[in-house]
Amino acid sequence: MNSSALSYTFSQRAQKLTGSAIREILKITVRPEIISFAGGLPAPKGFPTEAINRAYDRVLAQMGPVALQYGPTEGYAPLRAWVAEDLKRSGAHDISVDEVLIVSGSQQALDMLGKLFVDPGSKVLVEAPSYLGALQSFSLFEPTYVPAPTDEGGLIPEGLTDERVKDARFIYALPNFQNPTGLTLSLARRQALVERCAAVGLPIIEDDPYGDLRYAGEALPGLLGLGRAAGATVIRLGTFSKVLAPGLRLGYIAAPKDIISKLVQIKQATDLHTASITQMAVYEVVKDGFLGTHLPTVRELYKQQCTYMLDAMATHFPATATWTRPEGGMFIWVTLPAHIDSTELLARAIQKNVAFVPGAPFYTDEDAPKNTMRLSFVTVSEAKIREGVAVLGQLIKES
Amino acid sequence: MNSSALSYTFSQRAQKLTGSAIREILKITVRPEIISFAGGLPAPKGFPTEAINRAYDRVLAQMGPVALQYGPTEGYAPLRAWVAEDLKRSGAHDISVDEVLIVSGSQQALDMLGKLFVDPGSKVLVEAPSYLGALQSFSLFEPTYVPAPTDEGGLIPEGLTDERVKDARFIYALPNFQNPTGLTLSLARRQALVERCAAVGLPIIEDDPYGDLRYAGEALPGLLGLGRAAGATVIRLGTFSKVLAPGLRLGYIAAPKDIISKLVQIKQATDLHTASITQMAVYEVVKDGFLGTHLPTVRELYKQQCTYMLDAMATHFPATATWTRPEGGMFIWVTLPAHIDSTELLARAIQKNVAFVPGAPFYTDEDAPKNTMRLSFVTVSEAKIREGVAVLGQLIKES
Repeated sequence: MNSSALSYTFSQRAQKLTGSAIREILKITVRPEIISFAGGLPAPKGFPTEAINRAYDRVLAQMGPVALQYGPTEGYAPLRAWVAEDLKRSGAHDISVDEVLIVSGSQQALDMLGKLFVDPGSKVLVEAPSYLGALQSFSLFEPTYVPAPTDEGGLIPEGLTDERVKDARFIYALPNFQNPTGLTLSLARRQALVERCAAVGLPIIEDDPYGDLRYAGEALPGLLGLGRAAGATVIRLGTFSKVLAPGLRLGYIAAPKDIISKLVQIKQATDLHTASITQMAVYEVVKDGFLGTHLPTVRELYKQQCTYMLDAMATHFPATATWTRPEGGMFIWVTLPAHIDSTELLARAIQKNVAFVPGAPFYTDEDAPKNTMRLSFVTVSEAKIREGVAVLGQLIKES
Repeated sequence: MNSSALSYTFSQRAQKLTGSAIREILKITVRPEIISFAGGLPAPKGFPTEAINRAYDRVLAQMGPVALQYGPTEGYAPLRAWVAEDLKRSGAHDISVDEVLIVSGSQQALDMLGKLFVDPGSKVLVEAPSYLGALQSFSLFEPTYVPAPTDEGGLIPEGLTDERVKDARFIYALPNFQNPTGLTLSLARRQALVERCAAVGLPIIEDDPYGDLRYAGEALPGLLGLGRAAGATVIRLGTFSKVLAPGLRLGYIAAPKDIISKLVQIKQATDLHTASITQMAVYEVVKDGFLGTHLPTVRELYKQQCTYMLDAMATHFPATATWTRPEGGMFIWVTLPAHIDSTELLARAIQKNVAFVPGAPFYTDEDAPKNTMRLSFVTVSEAKIREGVAVLGQLIKES
């Protein structure tokens, strides 16, 4: 833009940021002709637009000057109290308001936890594979990732050997319908995980964006409640993105008070506080039990969409491919025959107007398997799911 | 909370975070009996509550599924275009949409710029004194602050000697009605500043939250426009907090494309994007020239409040105190006789139910003057301003 464009010096972390080739490819998936299984977008059909509109009306009419003013960094007190109470549904019965901090979406929680725990080179344990957005967030603080072993049941607690956990700052885990695999950790593994982490003093970051979207199997207690009983330090992240709407950018952290206290200082430096009006409107929506009637309709929608895709995959995918059968959430994880590189498959799929996310970027180690892919099924119509899966099946068979 | 409470290790930056004694004192200023000149809160009378309510209604009725969905990290395109166009008022005529990034309040911009530019030990130039929130934000990235010399005209461009600017990552400046001093940089100094920074290749972060709140004197061109003409790199931060309402948490960054491009990657890792619904509602409010009719009423309100306080200070403060006469914004900066420590003064003022912010925390050097204080006049009634200023005047005289 001008001659001084080369005169500034970025930080080392910023210099390490590089464009993602896959992100560039996926940019074209917004074209209407593309059948995209790539996104992590919730289904807009599930957004309670009218209830949200009424809530904004009420908040602005009754509490406008508060809703439009700066607010406390900790968050809107009634919403924090609601979250503390709501956490009982996940089996955490003793959470106080002081242990809840409201954040601008749980992605922000990841950024704040990176600031709290990670020095350059700090050891951080992540499931292999793990949520890409968390890896991006933590990476700004330059950790050394240590993959925690997983199998078809998700994270393997016995894999947290003394050597692996030594000096690690935390383990980051998604116990319900994991992103990207769709896998759910069994109760036995949850119990073993919190006991192991309590024994070795390893804090657990429990990220649970999808827990309320269970449409099969039985609800399992979250790590926060199990961890407290076992003496483990658990930091739980929750979000309103999947139970209400992501465009609100609202989530929370539940953690021991001394951790919340540090996070409040970090949050103040990061963005002062989360929008007052948004917090108050969401509280208006949820305060009288709205989710109890709303969530079943969302779950039914997601279950139906998942069924469409699993049916189509059973019809069109070759027997050499295997995939997960999620009990909730938004994602199916596919393992292709070992000779197929899913990034190359994506290039061919895009030419036929179908998109997905290759699995490799969800791993932190460079020699990760290249024959995996993540399929999201929630925003695509039944007909388009069948059409897109048929295209993918044909391409896989041709590979 | 449990036996593992001591088992986790915080990052070095988090270990350095300490509670602020002054912040603890100021916590009590929310009590209704306290006359607080401490806050940086805009006057709720200036919030266009009805216009904002109508905007949310329209957005949710007409574009609900988009407003409630994830959105682009760069921000809502029509709002970015509006900002680019609006920047012409500050004298920046050639800003393209690609040079504008929407953020969750300009505090977030400071966090993102810390991530972009600051490694531990990086030299960062700040006005002495400077905005406390910026210092908190940058400090998470562990810079070495170098105070830039100021006088009663604000920042002194000639003070940016070769030695001072050598290897500095940027200079952070608030040219209009600075927080905390209320001072405005003259046109001659603006011109000298951008020329000096162009010559030595020092990027300027221009933070301008109050520029639209000018109620005296003549509007001056911003550093962004002047800097581009002079070949300097200027990163301009703006916010809707003071022209609409801070509870929305909405601001923007305008900068050269290569900087915006890095900041987009950082923003994605930080919070994915700013709330879609908020961006769309604010665009609805401002798109047809609303600020042209709204801002004069806000300016008139602030001017009146400022006059109340300056009048009261002229009446009650001793001749040994001096203070700034702002042409806009929210703050007056008082220099007390050298023997008065304003932190001790605050303790006595609080006992008489009056609060302000002592000046020392706005400085980065520990041997900063202790005899300064910041007074905010915008949210207190005329009668309470007179009452509070009388109390302060009496305490100063007794010191």
